[in-house]
Amino acid sequence: MAKQKVGGLAGVNAGESGICTVGTGHGLNYRGYDIYDLSRECEFEEVAYLLLFENLPNKNELDLFKQELIKARVLPRELKEVLKLLPKDAHPMDIMRSACSVLGCLETEEYDIATMSFPMQQQIATRLLGIFPSILIFWHHYHINGKEIDTESNQDSIAGYFLESLHQKAPKELWIKAMHVSLILYAEHEFNASTFAARVITATISDIYSGITGAISALRGPLHGGANEAAMELISEFSSPEEATQGILNKLARKDKIMGFGHRVYVEKDPRNVVIKEWSKKLSEDVGDTKRLYDISEAIEKVMWNEKKLFPNLDFYSASTYHFMGIPTPYFTPIFIFSRTAGWLAHIFEQRANNKLIRPSSEYVGPDKRDFVPLQKR
Amino acid sequence: MAKQKVGGLAGVNAGESGICTVGTGHGLNYRGYDIYDLSRECEFEEVAYLLLFENLPNKNELDLFKQELIKARVLPRELKEVLKLLPKDAHPMDIMRSACSVLGCLETEEYDIATMSFPMQQQIATRLLGIFPSILIFWHHYHINGKEIDTESNQDSIAGYFLESLHQKAPKELWIKAMHVSLILYAEHEFNASTFAARVITATISDIYSGITGAISALRGPLHGGANEAAMELISEFSSPEEATQGILNKLARKDKIMGFGHRVYVEKDPRNVVIKEWSKKLSEDVGDTKRLYDISEAIEKVMWNEKKLFPNLDFYSASTYHFMGIPTPYFTPIFIFSRTAGWLAHIFEQRANNKLIRPSSEYVGPDKRDFVPLQKR
Repeated sequence: MAKQKVGGLAGVNAGESGICTVGTGHGLNYRGYDIYDLSRECEFEEVAYLLLFENLPNKNELDLFKQELIKARVLPRELKEVLKLLPKDAHPMDIMRSACSVLGCLETEEYDIATMSFPMQQQIATRLLGIFPSILIFWHHYHINGKEIDTESNQDSIAGYFLESLHQKAPKELWIKAMHVSLILYAEHEFNASTFAARVITATISDIYSGITGAISALRGPLHGGANEAAMELISEFSSPEEATQGILNKLARKDKIMGFGHRVYVEKDPRNVVIKEWSKKLSEDVGDTKRLYDISEAIEKVMWNEKKLFPNLDFYSASTYHFMGIPTPYFTPIFIFSRTAGWLAHIFEQRANNKLIRPSSEYVGPDKRDFVPLQKR
Repeated sequence: MAKQKVGGLAGVNAGESGICTVGTGHGLNYRGYDIYDLSRECEFEEVAYLLLFENLPNKNELDLFKQELIKARVLPRELKEVLKLLPKDAHPMDIMRSACSVLGCLETEEYDIATMSFPMQQQIATRLLGIFPSILIFWHHYHINGKEIDTESNQDSIAGYFLESLHQKAPKELWIKAMHVSLILYAEHEFNASTFAARVITATISDIYSGITGAISALRGPLHGGANEAAMELISEFSSPEEATQGILNKLARKDKIMGFGHRVYVEKDPRNVVIKEWSKKLSEDVGDTKRLYDISEAIEKVMWNEKKLFPNLDFYSASTYHFMGIPTPYFTPIFIFSRTAGWLAHIFEQRANNKLIRPSSEYVGPDKRDFVPLQKR
């Protein structure tokens, strides 16, 4: 797909970027580091730091960064009030999108257009990375349990903090590690749709909150971040691998869309899949996978390859991985936000540092010139 | 500019569209109708209808559409509460962006991904066009005057309703007409940055509110919709045409950015300028232009052309036009929303009808592959 020009700007170079390589030849690297090394060896915070500041942190730098992120968890009073007003049955991505936008009203980014200087951007970057889990968790507990939780926690990582505050108890180390891996794998992916939306918005010299709000808006779609939720719904339809095999064959015969397979950039496989699949297996063994979700996932993977030569992308095994940790399906895409915000911010910084308005043209396929007819004669 | 590939996707064809022609050869047409005919003869509602439904309405269709728009002015209770919580000194574009997003939590768009059917999209389109002026006006009066205004009005147009509810008295017919013209001129402009952001978001099969929220996010920037506010600030710096001439020369010598001039697509002139300039003149004569803003604007136009061969775009004379009607400068870009929402929605419908994920590539300019060093050794 990437080699042909098939619309949707596929394979079209939309600008320079020094953050991420995807696709064949390079492998998947963040700022030159192999995603396999990063996901095996790092905390998510190290990778977020790498994306934002271009180099991996040393111990001191990491500690300071994590302290800033912990401070950034606290919700402003007005934002809490807004979260209480938003309905219990709203789409959690709509909650995240709205909360990000509201935060932009409360803690507005000031900057100088004449000199193109953005003195608050690093501070706001940390703020957003730190506060996003708090937003989801506060809204969740208020509407599910009627509890206004505070954001105190002994967990010093986003992974641990999210799991602990969601479940309101200390998470297993294995889960925290799995969450770090997932956040690292999702953190950055070049000019994907949400990142590209953030860059289009940023290129008008709009503020950071606008860029991230727009990115969340794009991530919500099932052809992008929403795919991990769609994958979970798919897996949950079946009670055995055999049933899944037959069910997918039926869906393919009906030409239903199957989410979580294939990718705009990758032709043969998604390099992230092998990592998240291993973690899905590990957690499946750890929790006792009574619904056989891992086996069902593998059965679906097999049919999709045999029938369509389509491979699972990162979203597919992320679904079962999250499910094994007791995370409600509607929160899968918000977790993607917690992670990809690091990549979005890196791209916003990069766009600003060498800005050019992103404004393409279209091929006109509408009506020829028409003579105007006044209302009275229509 | 448009002919060379100079980055920012300038001159790059990003897809087919049948809504608008811009640039040389065609003139500026909406759905085949000349912008000069539309802005001279129509109400904004006729043009919004044209953009959404592809043809100009007859009297009956227009009446029905206007009735729907009037009904759509009413604010939900939760949204009012949110607007009351958002600070008085927030950026009005942040208010609009947040309110649009919050409305998406309250009146969520449901649709079927498998069949790509969007049964609520027309209803939500009318809702957004109708409610946007109410949002700004409610927030304004609550924080400025402590008044919770209701949305009852004798005005049957968006132009009249906005002016009446802003000033809390019946507006002059001349002002209503000027506002219709301005809304028509701003309603649509092909793949401009905010519309393109809306399409990138929509192409992931996200909801309408996400698309419009992202569009507002992009419009906020001073290289896009924010330019009309920047133009007003510029004009207000000077107390005479002579002072303006010298002041602009000084700015140019300092290489300051001057907003409201030039355009990505147009090379010699913005065809909308002649219309809005005439209205600026008309209103300047009507109100008694004691600050000589029209003359100052003309002086600036002259220097910019003589020195830089740059022409005023639509934003430049929109600034004085709005100012003469007593509209506070920070509301100039929100008015752009009231108008361009029609174009955004038309593009969202069009994108959905023939969807393809918009996901370009980038040219990698980052570091070569780097060997991973664990935290302990950094």
